[in-house]
Amino acid sequence: MAVRALLRGGSPAVRALLRRPLSGAGGGAGGGGRRAALMAGGALGALGLGLWRRAAAERRQDEEEEEEEEELRFMAPPVSGLRELRRRRRELRSRMELLIMETQAEVCRALAALDPGAAFAVDTWERKEGGGGISCVLQDGDVFEKAGVNVSVVSGLLSEGAARQMRSRGKSLKAKDGKLPFCAMGVSSVIHPKNPHVPTMHFNYRYFEIEEADGTIQWWFGGGTDLTPTYLNEEDAVHFHKTLKEACDKHDLKLYPKYKKWCDDYFYIKHRGERRGIGGIFFDDLDSPSKEEVFQFVKSCAKAVVPCYVPIVKKHCHDSFTPEEKLWQQLRRGRYVEFNLVYDRGTKFGLLTPGSRIESILMSLPLTARWEYMHTPPASSKEAEILEVLRNPKDWVH
Amino acid sequence: MAVRALLRGGSPAVRALLRRPLSGAGGGAGGGGRRAALMAGGALGALGLGLWRRAAAERRQDEEEEEEEEELRFMAPPVSGLRELRRRRRELRSRMELLIMETQAEVCRALAALDPGAAFAVDTWERKEGGGGISCVLQDGDVFEKAGVNVSVVSGLLSEGAARQMRSRGKSLKAKDGKLPFCAMGVSSVIHPKNPHVPTMHFNYRYFEIEEADGTIQWWFGGGTDLTPTYLNEEDAVHFHKTLKEACDKHDLKLYPKYKKWCDDYFYIKHRGERRGIGGIFFDDLDSPSKEEVFQFVKSCAKAVVPCYVPIVKKHCHDSFTPEEKLWQQLRRGRYVEFNLVYDRGTKFGLLTPGSRIESILMSLPLTARWEYMHTPPASSKEAEILEVLRNPKDWVH
Repeated sequence: MAVRALLRGGSPAVRALLRRPLSGAGGGAGGGGRRAALMAGGALGALGLGLWRRAAAERRQDEEEEEEEEELRFMAPPVSGLRELRRRRRELRSRMELLIMETQAEVCRALAALDPGAAFAVDTWERKEGGGGISCVLQDGDVFEKAGVNVSVVSGLLSEGAARQMRSRGKSLKAKDGKLPFCAMGVSSVIHPKNPHVPTMHFNYRYFEIEEADGTIQWWFGGGTDLTPTYLNEEDAVHFHKTLKEACDKHDLKLYPKYKKWCDDYFYIKHRGERRGIGGIFFDDLDSPSKEEVFQFVKSCAKAVVPCYVPIVKKHCHDSFTPEEKLWQQLRRGRYVEFNLVYDRGTKFGLLTPGSRIESILMSLPLTARWEYMHTPPASSKEAEILEVLRNPKDWVH
Repeated sequence: MAVRALLRGGSPAVRALLRRPLSGAGGGAGGGGRRAALMAGGALGALGLGLWRRAAAERRQDEEEEEEEEELRFMAPPVSGLRELRRRRRELRSRMELLIMETQAEVCRALAALDPGAAFAVDTWERKEGGGGISCVLQDGDVFEKAGVNVSVVSGLLSEGAARQMRSRGKSLKAKDGKLPFCAMGVSSVIHPKNPHVPTMHFNYRYFEIEEADGTIQWWFGGGTDLTPTYLNEEDAVHFHKTLKEACDKHDLKLYPKYKKWCDDYFYIKHRGERRGIGGIFFDDLDSPSKEEVFQFVKSCAKAVVPCYVPIVKKHCHDSFTPEEKLWQQLRRGRYVEFNLVYDRGTKFGLLTPGSRIESILMSLPLTARWEYMHTPPASSKEAEILEVLRNPKDWVH
């Protein structure tokens, strides 16, 4: 069952909510409250049942308030529940779930602030095979045509198709009686703006665990952030790549060049001989040097999403444009659809996973797209300029 | 290299050409001319070199005229060349190539007559690995948003991906040194009209030959014709299915029910739980009772395309419609794109075959499409009515 709330960027109450700091005073006070409740519980033997009942009621109330407060940081309560996440706070799974929840809220807040008249629909959904998610979609705003930021935390048994897809990229997965228990979580987003001078942006950060026949847990992280402009703006391209490079460089200078190339290779629309966009970073199956180090790297990347994209939106969202420029944007949207439906790993995994939420997977598709037979832009046009870069990726940061 | 001609339905010359009968007096006279030239050639010994030269020149001219005449029946010269097709006229490959060329011309003529202001672009293309094709596309007309009718005749070695796709549906293909020489030909068409009360129609008839390691030739036919309405019109649905049933019934009463069901199963968009349209007929891997009988059946199906669809277009192409109806059409177009890019066998085969012509494969995509997050039509609406039929296919002819 999906629970749906409509958060209007235009409503002062919700805008205040959306602007709450990520780790505000509420969270801290909540932590203190919980400690107080535990102490009160310890006094049970000495003070008798009446007092115990009062203490238990107070504890419940404290906990509820504290959870309410903490949940305001997020777009909706986390799939695994705050109490559970707190209980196993040292586990990487919990830390990753909190990171994807924070990233979702951070990006939604930043976008809502840019498109004050628009509405963010927040849907929470459960998957009967295990887990669920939170989808936040802003549709047909002034600035954004469609902006989706999804979180999903799912677990269960890997489908035959999904296992085949993973093995095909070199994973050896030893199944027990043909079964592979898995847990996958991630934040995934595609932002399609209205103005053809504002590029489309996509990011996704995810964590996977698969339990093999002998009980070993295979784990890995994947993710990336990439930009798909309708028209090339070199300054924007440099800003975008530079911000991602800085996030990578904090961890290892080898990361940016490697994942920049991986991104160019991954977002290749083979049948068109061109990339989906001007790239960014992409990585998958990342399981070294250590879980902690990879997590910290993924965290830096997730934190770079807003600074690498929001300034570009601000800069161009009021640019004037012609009907011809809008048309070219629609044709580029068509290519976006082709990549996502034919090649995208995440979309394929979603379509192959029984019980997955199709509306959340396919929110990545633009509101509108166009396919013209044999469309070729004139040589030396602005349209030909971006095509050239999509065919021959450039180095933006050197 | 692609050779391109633009046939304007509006130009009287081309409209006359498009309206030429399929087997007119020109073809017959040409045949007579060829016979006369052969007789003249036989007189060489008696009449000396000058006369021989004149006879040879006349023969060449006769042959050229005859070919020109015959080619007017088609949208462009056949891939294998008329002379070659005539030389091996008894072979099924040649007869099938002529059938797909005739079908292309017949459908293009019928559509051009319905949309007199529109233009059919005719592109002939060659595939460097072997073969080529003829693509006829009418775009942005008064009646049709995009109407494509393609012929392709390709040969070479089957790609690894294409062989895997065939094996996955149960074919055992024994390769020699990993190589599988193949020949594939077909006519394929998708017609997307502008008016939401005129349904989209698709048909495809194809013939395959694969040479196995021991020299045996595996051959089969595939094809079908199906309808995708934006709104349900029961009368149209009955007419469409009835016309197809009549074509099938001429060969075997079991065919229509079997291929009607196959069509409903094949055009299933699994991730949406709905069919692409209200079906028609679909079959694949058809290799019995005999090559000749299957060919005759395929011929009947191909001849049924115009009578099953054109009356529906004529009936509705001037219907009035609201912006809301146009919007619903755009959303249905989105589902069409999803089916074609995620599931369609022909599209997959095309994308997996090196050197295939992407513009011809993807001409099946509509000019415009739309994806709205969580769009659900109100209960008892006309939109809900068609969805119900897409979820639970009906029998239209009983």
